[in-house]
Amino acid sequence: MSRWEPNTRVRLLDAALDLFGERGYDSVTVAEIAERAGLTKRTFFRHFSDKREVLFAGQEVLSRLFAEAIADAPASATPIEAVAAALQAAATPFGPQRRDRARQVQAVVAGHSDLRERELLKLATLRAAMADALSARGVPAPTATLAAEIGGLAFTTGFARWVAPGNEREFGELAGEALDELMAATTALG
Amino acid sequence: MSRWEPNTRVRLLDAALDLFGERGYDSVTVAEIAERAGLTKRTFFRHFSDKREVLFAGQEVLSRLFAEAIADAPASATPIEAVAAALQAAATPFGPQRRDRARQVQAVVAGHSDLRERELLKLATLRAAMADALSARGVPAPTATLAAEIGGLAFTTGFARWVAPGNEREFGELAGEALDELMAATTALG
Repeated sequence: MSRWEPNTRVRLLDAALDLFGERGYDSVTVAEIAERAGLTKRTFFRHFSDKREVLFAGQEVLSRLFAEAIADAPASATPIEAVAAALQAAATPFGPQRRDRARQVQAVVAGHSDLRERELLKLATLRAAMADALSARGVPAPTATLAAEIGGLAFTTGFARWVAPGNEREFGELAGEALDELMAATTALG
Repeated sequence: MSRWEPNTRVRLLDAALDLFGERGYDSVTVAEIAERAGLTKRTFFRHFSDKREVLFAGQEVLSRLFAEAIADAPASATPIEAVAAALQAAATPFGPQRRDRARQVQAVVAGHSDLRERELLKLATLRAAMADALSARGVPAPTATLAAEIGGLAFTTGFARWVAPGNEREFGELAGEALDELMAATTALG
């Protein structure tokens, strides 16, 4: 990354991914990540509490984007239409130019059980953000939670397909498709 | 607990809960829990990897009960009927005689963020066990995952109502009710 990259969190993530790729996740230190990004260790810790967190650099932005998209959906939108709008909002941070980086993140996370656990927690936060935003629109309790769970499933399914080897389709399209499949599946529950 | 209590894991859990109630979760050691249960520290570590794990003593049994109930559901059962059978299977470990202990666990978990995180992971394991058991019945991928998610929501909702102050209704009834509410909510998703 160039030194004038405006997004410090992304700079730190990309420096970390380069180092993890060169030497493996376990042996890289926070000091080395900061140095590679041209930043101080102190700056790193202003943004992330530890080395693991840097891999989830985009999570907070994503929660905010999801909540805003749900809040901004037209008053006439059904709960699932609001969730669909949230998934489309993620298409911006998950643009084609970030797909290879997302694949690198995925490879590191998949190889470490503590990172997979942290990923589950981040997903729970994402679902909670959607459920809260739906409640704020007046969607009643069980429907809001259920719509957020389905949104979370569509998100993880869409993401897995987006980073799959050889995929060139866009995140928004894949997540929208996964949401449609889940809604179709609701009729097969019995 | 009496010394001849056959279930070592439950004995350790109950000893731990007594000590946590007397002195607070943070100051109690594994050695003290083992001693109170009339067991050795080595026995503790044969059952649990650390102090936190003792609070989730029943989780593995639960995953197994859920998976077995889904496998044993009649061939004609819909995915949600199989999930309903799983929730009813939990009524045995969550009998009225365990409700006060479950309330104590809940109080300790609610007060510690690392325990709340661990609880989320245990729930993910439970959902995965249900999804796998549904897949083994031939339920196709998105339906199996969705049914397991709804089962997980019904489980947590039913559990929260079961341990709520003043509740005297049975777990199976409350979880079944929560499942019915969620299935009704599927029609309101839009």
